[in-house]
Amino acid sequence: MLPIMDDTFYMKLAIDLAERVIGQTSINPAVGCVIVKDGRVVGLGAHLKRGEGHAEVHALRMAQAEAAGSTAYVTLEPCSHYGKTPPCSLRLIEAGVKRVVIACTDPNPVVAGNGVRILEEHGIEVKQGVLQEEAFHLIEMFAKYMTTKLPYVTQKTAQTLDGRIATHTGHSQWITNELARECVHTMRHRHQAIMVGIGTIEADNPSLTTRLSVPALHPVRIIVDSKLRISLEAKVIQDKIAPTWILTTSQASKAKISELEKRGVSVIVVNDGPLVDMREALKEIGKREIGSILLEGGGTLNGAMLQSGLIDSIVLMIAPKIVGHKEAPGSFMFDGPEKMSDALELEQVRVESIGDNVIISGVPLYPSQEKGGL
Amino acid sequence: MLPIMDDTFYMKLAIDLAERVIGQTSINPAVGCVIVKDGRVVGLGAHLKRGEGHAEVHALRMAQAEAAGSTAYVTLEPCSHYGKTPPCSLRLIEAGVKRVVIACTDPNPVVAGNGVRILEEHGIEVKQGVLQEEAFHLIEMFAKYMTTKLPYVTQKTAQTLDGRIATHTGHSQWITNELARECVHTMRHRHQAIMVGIGTIEADNPSLTTRLSVPALHPVRIIVDSKLRISLEAKVIQDKIAPTWILTTSQASKAKISELEKRGVSVIVVNDGPLVDMREALKEIGKREIGSILLEGGGTLNGAMLQSGLIDSIVLMIAPKIVGHKEAPGSFMFDGPEKMSDALELEQVRVESIGDNVIISGVPLYPSQEKGGL
Repeated sequence: MLPIMDDTFYMKLAIDLAERVIGQTSINPAVGCVIVKDGRVVGLGAHLKRGEGHAEVHALRMAQAEAAGSTAYVTLEPCSHYGKTPPCSLRLIEAGVKRVVIACTDPNPVVAGNGVRILEEHGIEVKQGVLQEEAFHLIEMFAKYMTTKLPYVTQKTAQTLDGRIATHTGHSQWITNELARECVHTMRHRHQAIMVGIGTIEADNPSLTTRLSVPALHPVRIIVDSKLRISLEAKVIQDKIAPTWILTTSQASKAKISELEKRGVSVIVVNDGPLVDMREALKEIGKREIGSILLEGGGTLNGAMLQSGLIDSIVLMIAPKIVGHKEAPGSFMFDGPEKMSDALELEQVRVESIGDNVIISGVPLYPSQEKGGL
Repeated sequence: MLPIMDDTFYMKLAIDLAERVIGQTSINPAVGCVIVKDGRVVGLGAHLKRGEGHAEVHALRMAQAEAAGSTAYVTLEPCSHYGKTPPCSLRLIEAGVKRVVIACTDPNPVVAGNGVRILEEHGIEVKQGVLQEEAFHLIEMFAKYMTTKLPYVTQKTAQTLDGRIATHTGHSQWITNELARECVHTMRHRHQAIMVGIGTIEADNPSLTTRLSVPALHPVRIIVDSKLRISLEAKVIQDKIAPTWILTTSQASKAKISELEKRGVSVIVVNDGPLVDMREALKEIGKREIGSILLEGGGTLNGAMLQSGLIDSIVLMIAPKIVGHKEAPGSFMFDGPEKMSDALELEQVRVESIGDNVIISGVPLYPSQEKGGL
């Protein structure tokens, strides 16, 4: 379609800028900014790294004197507080920006609207809500963390048509096609941590790193291991490619903890056991400023997380294969409901074909929530 | 898109005519015919009922004298043999048709091309292969039956995201949404028979009839019941809405057989047992001129049919729900492969969203076949 120049046209570019930096801003949100003056783009920016300049700062620096009298398009409401950098709303005011177009307001309810108010108090015209939904998608992990201090959990499963993640012998490589696997590695780059259970480490000895045709970032590897039975020879212990954290209980041997710590592994004793309390575990992870987790568990860990209401979104990658055996492990194992009408449902379902694989994603609707709520 | 008048334009209408009569022609294929003379449609026809006129006959009757010098579009090569009606190729010649456009040749290799040859011998211009793939889809069930004398089997399953067709207590109503269920009833209308195992009868006591917002046809109900344990009170025995056939073994009690036959049920003793040999069963069904079966089995019957290579296409309807329990029955139960690389794969995969449900369909590639073969 031929493009139409309007506020959406420039905001779309600001969103594209932000979209390309998801995963590189640690706990901070991905934000993009475009500055336009008299029909020309004069400044482009994105928040590139935590502790460094926000999107607006980079864009203003590029615009220099052209910022005066310009319109700034930002995917997220400019900040109003002194954090690691001075507030962006003041920067925009000082630079003489005339109009600010915002996609999303600040997800933190305590400060939401403050940036807009400051801008308006200084006579700047503010327009809000342009491409709001697309822009919110960029910050939904940040939004959850800001409001709950718990990391956002994306659950990813690769399975057969009959819902199995391995054959009955445990063999699982590979289920999905190469493109689907590249999607998974892209998802790894975009999360701060990746989480699996000890069963997955023992079955596959994965490296849990990000492997793509372009350089990418490795998330923290988090292993749930209630009895700390992980082998010191496991790749995630040996390879030093990315940090490895192990969540365990007080049933773990002190000697094993110190062996692991000597190898640079962080061991977090979450609770008394016998199993790791996953809600407490997520609190501990949140305290350590991890705001997003890609859960790539087996059926048991996935089931436990789902049953505890801790999964925020589910991405199912389905290959057109059937393995059939009753003992072939399923993607979600937990004490399911007795009635089909009590099955856990997904909302906001999206379906995408990728070659002959299908990706179905959605947001679990937990029993305590109203349908259509949030 | 604006239409372009050409041979495809008229053939598309012939295909639409045929497509609307799938299911009402018994073992015969659905065929459509459009006759065009000097820029005007002058005849329309479809094969409506076995033993009555073919598509060309109806269309020629509508066209009357206009048929002379016309072009006839037919989805299937006109027949060349005296069956229940005289051959259509002669009818077209007698009517003075000048040009015949054909989508598909006859699927029976023994007579394929004969209709075309007769037409050409009489100086009629013949063009073949227009919308061939779409037209073959109309007759694929007929094609299989013609070449093997075995019915074409479409396997349909409604399942959760985690591949379950019921909760662990056996509760299954309903998994999919209303539109998906209407698709299933449309599929029932389009098959000559519907097949389930005795387990499904005992669990759900279904009527296995076709229920739609418009009147529709009921397929023959075929129940696989090795030991003939079906209750005489079952709906499929009591309701008399459609014929009921039971496939069993010689382990069945003679008295029970006669009880059932007294109630109008056909009992077919396929083999000695202990289980019904499904390949022999399909031969018996084929002998009785059933050319298409919609298999709506539970996981055990589906698994047995798949393992025997008897399923021709699979239609999986997936609802965005998770039931999770290890004992919740799966869609296909059989002794699956040890390695993921030996999983049974589907080819010609199609993915379709229907509300928040997803339909994935495809053709199983059995181990003895080459990939991409057929």
